[in-house]
Amino acid sequence: MNVEFINPFLSSLVNVLATMAQTELKPGKPRVKKDEVAAGDVSGLIGMVGPQTKGSLSITFDESLALTIMERMLGERPSAINEEVTDMVGEITNMVTGGAKNLLGEKGYDFDMATPAVVSGTGHTITHKCEGTTIIMPFTSGDGNAHIEISFDTL
Amino acid sequence: MNVEFINPFLSSLVNVLATMAQTELKPGKPRVKKDEVAAGDVSGLIGMVGPQTKGSLSITFDESLALTIMERMLGERPSAINEEVTDMVGEITNMVTGGAKNLLGEKGYDFDMATPAVVSGTGHTITHKCEGTTIIMPFTSGDGNAHIEISFDTL
Repeated sequence: MNVEFINPFLSSLVNVLATMAQTELKPGKPRVKKDEVAAGDVSGLIGMVGPQTKGSLSITFDESLALTIMERMLGERPSAINEEVTDMVGEITNMVTGGAKNLLGEKGYDFDMATPAVVSGTGHTITHKCEGTTIIMPFTSGDGNAHIEISFDTL
Repeated sequence: MNVEFINPFLSSLVNVLATMAQTELKPGKPRVKKDEVAAGDVSGLIGMVGPQTKGSLSITFDESLALTIMERMLGERPSAINEEVTDMVGEITNMVTGGAKNLLGEKGYDFDMATPAVVSGTGHTITHKCEGTTIIMPFTSGDGNAHIEISFDTL
């Protein structure tokens, strides 16, 4: 999987959070996920199916960051991860994947998106079960961390 | 979503576990998931995309049941949820969805499967963010419980 394929997801998440929630995420260096374990508290997951490829994507947030995003969007901070927060994480997952899909479609990479599912649970981890490598993109912010993981069967 | 659509997933999980791991799951009554929270320790998730529909499915296991399945398959019980266990849960998710896909294809319901992702984390919950209802199918066994959740945008 090459950089041309990764960058649209990375820039899409940065843009969505800047626009929706005035939250600046600082992207770290994308890398191949090997033995690394990346935990978080709330994650959006989405499946992708294209003519030449299929895969899965997850976006994982620390609870503190997810609650801050909600607070900036709604003006009130939830006390914990509730249905409004998981709705928001599902929506962000849709928007980021949809934004990347548009950019990649222009380059000839086509895929359709399934619907997202959102996981909540303190310190959970996600493993993408794909034949291809999994790329992890870390993000930091003053309010907590996030990361994207993405894996495709062929690319 | 009608019963004709649910039963292939239900029977597929029962068959896969009976065949692969000599484990008898007792299916409870499928129901629409409303305010219910269904937690588990390890889950396989997969996205589905068809010409008329898209959706997502999850299969969630209690840790005790997942470890027992591994023990019966490999002859040795892992001390905790490790990569072998998540591989097995990803594989079960593929097999159950693939089995149901074949049965449903014969009835004219077609969809393609994305690749699975596996979540591990004690007591996590999953919310399917679909316009349609989410159906939950509970299973019990002497070694712990499992459940399938499935949601499609249209059907």
